[in-house]
Amino acid sequence: MSAPVVIPRAERVAHFEQDVWSIFTPLALECQAVNLGQGFMNFPPPDFVIEAAREAVLRNECNQYSHPKGRPRLRNALAKSYSPLFGRTLDPEHEIVVTAGANEGIFSIFAGYLDQGSEVILMEPFFDQYISNITMNGGVPVYCPIRPKGDTSKDMSANEWKIDIKELESKITPQSKIIVLNTPHNPIGKVFSREELEEIGALAEKHNLLIISDEVYDRLYFDCKDHQRIATLKGFWERTITVGSGGKTFGTTGWRVGWMIGPKALVEPALAAHTRVVFCVNSPLQEAIAVGFEQADERGFFGTQISSYEHKREKLLAVFRELGLPCTIPEGSYFILVNTDKIQEIGVCAIPPTEFYSKPNQKLAENFARFAFCKTDETLDAAAERLLKLKHFIK
Amino acid sequence: MSAPVVIPRAERVAHFEQDVWSIFTPLALECQAVNLGQGFMNFPPPDFVIEAAREAVLRNECNQYSHPKGRPRLRNALAKSYSPLFGRTLDPEHEIVVTAGANEGIFSIFAGYLDQGSEVILMEPFFDQYISNITMNGGVPVYCPIRPKGDTSKDMSANEWKIDIKELESKITPQSKIIVLNTPHNPIGKVFSREELEEIGALAEKHNLLIISDEVYDRLYFDCKDHQRIATLKGFWERTITVGSGGKTFGTTGWRVGWMIGPKALVEPALAAHTRVVFCVNSPLQEAIAVGFEQADERGFFGTQISSYEHKREKLLAVFRELGLPCTIPEGSYFILVNTDKIQEIGVCAIPPTEFYSKPNQKLAENFARFAFCKTDETLDAAAERLLKLKHFIK
Repeated sequence: MSAPVVIPRAERVAHFEQDVWSIFTPLALECQAVNLGQGFMNFPPPDFVIEAAREAVLRNECNQYSHPKGRPRLRNALAKSYSPLFGRTLDPEHEIVVTAGANEGIFSIFAGYLDQGSEVILMEPFFDQYISNITMNGGVPVYCPIRPKGDTSKDMSANEWKIDIKELESKITPQSKIIVLNTPHNPIGKVFSREELEEIGALAEKHNLLIISDEVYDRLYFDCKDHQRIATLKGFWERTITVGSGGKTFGTTGWRVGWMIGPKALVEPALAAHTRVVFCVNSPLQEAIAVGFEQADERGFFGTQISSYEHKREKLLAVFRELGLPCTIPEGSYFILVNTDKIQEIGVCAIPPTEFYSKPNQKLAENFARFAFCKTDETLDAAAERLLKLKHFIK
Repeated sequence: MSAPVVIPRAERVAHFEQDVWSIFTPLALECQAVNLGQGFMNFPPPDFVIEAAREAVLRNECNQYSHPKGRPRLRNALAKSYSPLFGRTLDPEHEIVVTAGANEGIFSIFAGYLDQGSEVILMEPFFDQYISNITMNGGVPVYCPIRPKGDTSKDMSANEWKIDIKELESKITPQSKIIVLNTPHNPIGKVFSREELEEIGALAEKHNLLIISDEVYDRLYFDCKDHQRIATLKGFWERTITVGSGGKTFGTTGWRVGWMIGPKALVEPALAAHTRVVFCVNSPLQEAIAVGFEQADERGFFGTQISSYEHKREKLLAVFRELGLPCTIPEGSYFILVNTDKIQEIGVCAIPPTEFYSKPNQKLAENFARFAFCKTDETLDAAAERLLKLKHFIK
């Protein structure tokens, strides 16, 4: 018998561990756990968006290649919806690029900007895909923790998690090229205030950093608190690429339609990478997301969606209150960070936020679990039933 | 006024020119040309596949994240359809990965295997995206031309384009890691013979190269000539990743569903990269392509499709014969290479195959144009009408 074929993998993927999602979701199925781990909706997207997808596949031009920048209809709808939010008239031809989910958008920005050894400043905890997206493109992630400033043995607001701006600045070196902001924040649920954004933006300006503002949860903020955009603040538009997600906005995480918004000169290198990585994004679901934006306002969709998420958040918070487990009350996104301390096996799947921390700082996360509430009321009830059985195991 | 923000792009995208597709398709529209340039179908995908897409979006699990490997239903359908063609029982769990189009699949294979300076052997002409996909991942493309061995002033079969195996071997160095094969070939239309594949595979074996076999046109071969797969030949399975395309197979180029097939150990590094680049592929259109494969045989779909393409090929060939322009008669794919010599402006959009050559070898292509025949009969008739006006301009 001949020797087995061995072709060594590239160094860029050699250090990868299996991603947390590929482990936890099958595990949840296997254990028949109620899956509040992965942030996918177990309720359907709005009918008008589904109908738009059903109609799109009947038109052949929606079944063939789109332009790498994205379908004109979607870029126009995004420009119309986002121009008032950005306080400027967005140019759909040069300032908007549709990506294969926000994930591929972020990958392509890193690919467009990072050289070997370029440093990227991340606030910890962070969405785990950032790291591989940086290192695959030769970059080096540099971490600065967001710390809970309140008493974690009691409920606290997500806005009590703070970044120390001096500590953040201390992480910047001549190799720093990009700073990544995520607001509303996963997994904390923090919506950064205007003051915080101004401080972060000023640092970026001082050190000439590109800002990636990951705002995939931008339509999901609670308690009438507004979502602030760093790209709208004094002079920061010129250095910011804002990333958005059709999946989060319309409950279609499996459609893989995202976008980036920023000045032409800034977006171009990312578009160049994106065009080579995926060429273009799937056409019919771009068309459906376009219809989503076209009709969202007249249907009052975003407001209704926020109310529904506020209700789900209260439902899940009530369970943890009943259990006496302290929570971070999210101002946005659809996650609740719970101080779980010693509880292990509960038949409800959550995601350990250690995955959102660099190895040296994982101790900051070890007493927390992240629960997603983008689930039907029935699922939240089933989770509540199981979680409440914990009562006797909590000191 | 403050100085403009300048954030330099990464070296990996700094040398990119605009892709030929982004230039030619808008140009064709602007000139009201009949677009036989880009290989997209201007006729609809089969009804049963469209219906499957319409049905999929009604099931919520098809609107949410899929597993990075791809939806089980599609992986199972691919295993069932491809196992007989590969002469082995394919394991849908470990030997098949669904990608965001074949393009992202090929990108992810390069990302999974290439280190800085790794060399990739390409046969020229080549699909233009290969180059950026290699260089973005630190690799170096190395070219070996496929040359027409017949008289290019007359019609010739695509199988008269030959690779010189000694010349090919002369391109291999200690840095060579991958060889890319494309059969049926774009733009030549050549279907590599078993003997040619054995020679190429033997070289790969001798020098321990990974073979990427880009077989996106594997369901489109003509004149009852069979499509041979290098992965089925003696010992080559162990070093081959075969790439396929739902877009080419079912006429849905805008759905961005492709796949790779290969041994578990070989596919793993590419899956690791793919999981980080796009996380997963859009879910509803995966489901529809699964249905496509499930029902294709009972509906005799692939045979009917081949007949339809043979008819289109003959229709377009007849025009060039009438004009006395010599053609390469394709054995597969949906392109005809035409020796156009001095003709310039004809109101029909074709793609200059110089884009498929490295700069030093572009002279090999300068008298050819590539015409796509994946178009309705009406479009082919309209193209014929315009092309036939050339008659008086041909010496």
